[in-house]
Amino acid sequence: MNYQTLHIIESSNSLTLTLHRPDERNSINMRLLTELHHVLDIAENNSHYRSVILQGENGVFCTGMDFHELLNDIPDSTYENFANSYMSLLKRFTQTSKIIISLLDGQVLAGGVGLAAASDLILSTQRTQLSLTEALWGLLPACVMPFLIRRIGFQKAYYMTLTMDTMNAETAHKIGLIDEVTDNLQDNLRLLLLRFNRISQQTVGDLKSYFRKMWIITDAMESTAVNELCRLATNKNVRTNIKNYIEHQQFPWETYP
Amino acid sequence: MNYQTLHIIESSNSLTLTLHRPDERNSINMRLLTELHHVLDIAENNSHYRSVILQGENGVFCTGMDFHELLNDIPDSTYENFANSYMSLLKRFTQTSKIIISLLDGQVLAGGVGLAAASDLILSTQRTQLSLTEALWGLLPACVMPFLIRRIGFQKAYYMTLTMDTMNAETAHKIGLIDEVTDNLQDNLRLLLLRFNRISQQTVGDLKSYFRKMWIITDAMESTAVNELCRLATNKNVRTNIKNYIEHQQFPWETYP
Amino acid sequence: MNYQTLHIIESSNSLTLTLHRPDERNSINMRLLTELHHVLDIAENNSHYRSVILQGENGVFCTGMDFHELLNDIPDSTYENFANSYMSLLKRFTQTSKIIISLLDGQVLAGGVGLAAASDLILSTQRTQLSLTEALWGLLPACVMPFLIRRIGFQKAYYMTLTMDTMNAETAHKIGLIDEVTDNLQDNLRLLLLRFNRISQQTVGDLKSYFRKMWIITDAMESTAVNELCRLATNKNVRTNIKNYIEHQQFPWETYP
Repeated sequence: MNYQTLHIIESSNSLTLTLHRPDERNSINMRLLTELHHVLDIAENNSHYRSVILQGENGVFCTGMDFHELLNDIPDSTYENFANSYMSLLKRFTQTSKIIISLLDGQVLAGGVGLAAASDLILSTQRTQLSLTEALWGLLPACVMPFLIRRIGFQKAYYMTLTMDTMNAETAHKIGLIDEVTDNLQDNLRLLLLRFNRISQQTVGDLKSYFRKMWIITDAMESTAVNELCRLATNKNVRTNIKNYIEHQQFPWETYP
Repeated sequence: MNYQTLHIIESSNSLTLTLHRPDERNSINMRLLTELHHVLDIAENNSHYRSVILQGENGVFCTGMDFHELLNDIPDSTYENFANSYMSLLKRFTQTSKIIISLLDGQVLAGGVGLAAASDLILSTQRTQLSLTEALWGLLPACVMPFLIRRIGFQKAYYMTLTMDTMNAETAHKIGLIDEVTDNLQDNLRLLLLRFNRISQQTVGDLKSYFRKMWIITDAMESTAVNELCRLATNKNVRTNIKNYIEHQQFPWETYP
Repeated sequence: MNYQTLHIIESSNSLTLTLHRPDERNSINMRLLTELHHVLDIAENNSHYRSVILQGENGVFCTGMDFHELLNDIPDSTYENFANSYMSLLKRFTQTSKIIISLLDGQVLAGGVGLAAASDLILSTQRTQLSLTEALWGLLPACVMPFLIRRIGFQKAYYMTLTMDTMNAETAHKIGLIDEVTDNLQDNLRLLLLRFNRISQQTVGDLKSYFRKMWIITDAMESTAVNELCRLATNKNVRTNIKNYIEHQQFPWETYP
């Protein structure tokens, strides 16, 4: 595959993926999802890869769904494909026998929070800022929620969605959204990967499969999430809100009662 | 409606409700529930109200179910009405497109913890003290539990119920029972309300409806809660325990083996 | 019963059980489970016992399943009995009208974490160290999980299982795995027991039965846990891993790709 949205570095037993859409602030488009799925396929077909590392660049991890692509005049089925592909990616993170680690260093918005939340582990520098900004536009972080609630509980996930507050690394660590805050991501990562050499891939797979049975996420809940994202992403008001912002820097709330 | 248990202040886009039963330490009787439902009706029928603020007065937010009313010689169906009305009020807090904010400043007991826990957000001063004292009398905070567990997780809710410990604001904030602790409730509230102007009422409603599907509270669980509250509130031993306390300041445990 | 694995001290209204398998570092064998069930039977048949205290000795609370017994050449049904007995013990902790309190002072490994997690309350000294080491051998803390997730949420339980990290008392307290850290277990315990005199046994039983309906643990989930433990404990690779360690101090990961 000719990767357009990812830089991939291969080490002895891991693949490091750098999200690389600098002109779109690492937002998520269909191409990025396809490439991420493709790399996971490769990892799963090669037993010498034990882990997959996900990171951004230049102070941006990921800023969520690509609004320009969203506004293109495309059939509704395309959004369904997008939502399904995003959701199935998060689900794969939580089911694959590879260990998924997100490295945060800077901005993490909306759907970007989902990529991190569905990872097995999240390491972060001090300068990370996370927020769920979907509600500004009349959207919801629908597919993010099952995995964010799993990670930080109902109320914190609800609070982030409703208040759209920006959370810094220290607070995110305190509530369990980030597992480790460090000044040196690579050093911490190296220690972690060494430790993970002690667990077999079979056991990682067993473990993820087992934990799925110990929690409330079901296929039905995931479908609900996909449907809600499609419903809102194709909603005329939501699309107008986003269009007015992109084209005229006008925020929707300027028209609220 | 001629409000007897609430003081209501109307501002441009919110309603502030002050629980006002000074002689009964802001305990919850049927009248208070009816009035709270009535104000919610008004708010929901007027799109210029975006939020409903709930507070107590004189260092008492709410002390839970009115024991004097409970002891009146009334038919069991009255308790059913009470339990249903209380539960449906908490449920409405979590489903209405209005943002519900509780301001705590002092004592929050038993059912009062439920009013707060079911709110979207809880602001509090330093002097707040929360406790679940139901088990003292052989009661349980049955209707409070779904919403308290949603907010602080199973074990913390269980711990509060079993130990009947009094929790101060700092600890409550640490475990997520209180969202913000402040010396100046009104300043923090003002900032919060300003921020909420950026989210449409439609989206608040969508958000609450969606989050219900992402968590374990169901209609069946709510019925279980109502039934348990009725079962215990009409139990002869429980009623004797409460009667002896109110009439003779005698605590039930003085008779335990 | 002639207790071989427990020392039992009887006080006015509680039974204190000291796990006593010094040569096996307080690991859990079938005999220990049988004796623990037997003591619970006694407590439940005597209304003057209000609580059951569980502790270790010499810096070891409990180190999980007895690997020597596991490696004995016994029929698969024996593992089923073991897994069922362990799971039903944890379940009893969460359903009995007696208050179960674990006192931690030192090492708490694997299945030992389950005994503590299923208790109503956990007090601990500063020197306690907890870890879930099962994954090292290709096992999972299958029966521990329902109760550990209930106590500390999904992600923390998942993190402990995947990283096999050792957690100290301070961190365990911060995330809610330990309820109270103290320099003097006996003093804190005494205060706690005094306070519990104010709650009737009937209410403790009501409370536990009610909380079960407010959370996600079901009989089906417990069966899933038992089956997974049996599946892994009888797995040939897992048994070889453990055998090589016990007989040759060889760790399984030395052979991983």
